[in-house]
Amino acid sequence: MIEDKNPQRTPVEQLGEFGLIDFLTSQVALQHESSILGIGDDAAIIHSKDHTVITTDMLVEGVHFDLSYVPLKHLGYKAVMVNLSDVYAMNAIASQITVSIAISSRFPVEAVKELYDGIHLACKTYSVDLIGGDTTSSTSGLIISVTAIGHQKEEKIIKRDGASDGDLLVVSGDIGAAYMGLQILEREKAVYQANPNNQPDIESYSYLLERQLKPEARKDIPELLEQLEVTPTSMIDISDGLSSEVIHLCKNSNVGMKIYEDKLPLDPTVITSCEEFNLDSTTIALSGGEDYELLFTVKQEDFPKIKANPSLSIIGHAVPENEGIHLITRAGEQIPIKAMGWNSFKE
Amino acid sequence: MIEDKNPQRTPVEQLGEFGLIDFLTSQVALQHESSILGIGDDAAIIHSKDHTVITTDMLVEGVHFDLSYVPLKHLGYKAVMVNLSDVYAMNAIASQITVSIAISSRFPVEAVKELYDGIHLACKTYSVDLIGGDTTSSTSGLIISVTAIGHQKEEKIIKRDGASDGDLLVVSGDIGAAYMGLQILEREKAVYQANPNNQPDIESYSYLLERQLKPEARKDIPELLEQLEVTPTSMIDISDGLSSEVIHLCKNSNVGMKIYEDKLPLDPTVITSCEEFNLDSTTIALSGGEDYELLFTVKQEDFPKIKANPSLSIIGHAVPENEGIHLITRAGEQIPIKAMGWNSFKE
Repeated sequence: MIEDKNPQRTPVEQLGEFGLIDFLTSQVALQHESSILGIGDDAAIIHSKDHTVITTDMLVEGVHFDLSYVPLKHLGYKAVMVNLSDVYAMNAIASQITVSIAISSRFPVEAVKELYDGIHLACKTYSVDLIGGDTTSSTSGLIISVTAIGHQKEEKIIKRDGASDGDLLVVSGDIGAAYMGLQILEREKAVYQANPNNQPDIESYSYLLERQLKPEARKDIPELLEQLEVTPTSMIDISDGLSSEVIHLCKNSNVGMKIYEDKLPLDPTVITSCEEFNLDSTTIALSGGEDYELLFTVKQEDFPKIKANPSLSIIGHAVPENEGIHLITRAGEQIPIKAMGWNSFKE
Repeated sequence: MIEDKNPQRTPVEQLGEFGLIDFLTSQVALQHESSILGIGDDAAIIHSKDHTVITTDMLVEGVHFDLSYVPLKHLGYKAVMVNLSDVYAMNAIASQITVSIAISSRFPVEAVKELYDGIHLACKTYSVDLIGGDTTSSTSGLIISVTAIGHQKEEKIIKRDGASDGDLLVVSGDIGAAYMGLQILEREKAVYQANPNNQPDIESYSYLLERQLKPEARKDIPELLEQLEVTPTSMIDISDGLSSEVIHLCKNSNVGMKIYEDKLPLDPTVITSCEEFNLDSTTIALSGGEDYELLFTVKQEDFPKIKANPSLSIIGHAVPENEGIHLITRAGEQIPIKAMGWNSFKE
């Protein structure tokens, strides 16, 4: 591998805050009709006749990401995805983001640009306008705070509280892969630290790594549901883990839930890597987190419209609240589901 | 002073992220008609027929504040003010905020509650709804990222770009006090570190300290201007320092500016404290920052409506762009104004 022995390192203080903002955002053109004014005033201006949804997430170095194996461009992309995922989970169309970053002096301008390359790529791919933010220094690590804005007609917005007894529980894509991707990255980091000459063996895990490092928000799922003429009764995105999100849906909708172990959509590489790591793949599917798939309930009468769709898996159904939330195992056992999703306050 | 020798210290992990959010926000009631849905779903929902303005600012421990002398409640209040100030600078009515925090394990639940007490107080005082946010752990200090949202009719929004040659430059309140408050806090910290038994001598500086620790955003100024039937041609808030903000207005409006040293509104305690610290009070007024006053331009014909108002000072006037931006000293000298405001990337 040919390495650039003298990569350019321009200290951020050479540009200053306003110079840095100009450098990072001068190429930004507004695409959305609802974006009236972008970067460069005290506030951005947006306008839509529809309702506005707004969501925000903060990513902290050493808590949410490890820069020893996460490329900055991927990190910028992912920081946008985790927020857009919340907009799509409201069945809204994402239209704007603001991005605030705090960076320590170990980040040269070139590194910040890489981060923004990922942010700009996400904006372009998902047709979202970067309309504002803040850029400041930090005393230690990198912090990224993104706020995402979307629009939708009032009657089309889907919240967490509309599920009823008998509704079917549906998940998009597959789950557990992002968590297994993280396990592989952590293992390869340990191997590298023990012997920096070891070549990482990650080719067979490319799907898992992609799910961890470059997740995609499911912009396509609300579009697909519209085509299928299916209106979910409730919806949430899977960021902390399936079990945690199911509990949120149930609490907000005052229902219980039965989930069937044999229906959980797992990629074959999740199963093989779980075997390799001696992990139970059902536990990983339930608690892994960071999948950024959409989890939603639909009326039973919509079953024919979605049953054969390769992007959607029916994994269970709502029951009365007093029946609780259970996993039905392959052996037919009922196991109560507890929130075991990711919690940044616990080790 | 009677001190509680055993203050309660509940570790945050005892509550977990969702428990902490419940604890901090369970009292929140939405006041604004435009707040449709607050905390508790993937995103909040707002709706207004008017245009929406949106702004965001991040405060980082060790860069923007020093917890050895900033009480957490004041910090929470200030984090909201900094953002509302930007909304008022658009001549909009602030209506919602989201608040994201990252906290290290040295902050017990009680400390986070103090921070949120300040945030809730700010919301109540300024009639703003807390509609969302994020709560996460950090590996070192405290980080607060606030996004503020406001609404205003399209034709009433005031940007930075509307000033013309001949317009009068007006500033609300007085400037420089927040910076001198910081100098006093830094001095008292050094005195305390040298000898912890020394009692701090800060009573005579109470105005300066209040301006630094508990600034108020000028919600009243857009209201006053409406009463006076004055529509500013351009407006900005003073966060980084007068000189820096004047340059922003001039750049955006393609004008130059003359500012008169003898017109700068300084509180008497700014002048006495500057003498004490051997600082030039005009330099402090120009470069101090964190005043959160509003700076705006008005048509000359509005002069009679504002000239006698105790909340407003006319400090200069716009000139053609090619004449540049100058301070006219008491001695009649013209000194070019350069941005010397606060920059987090420089020491």
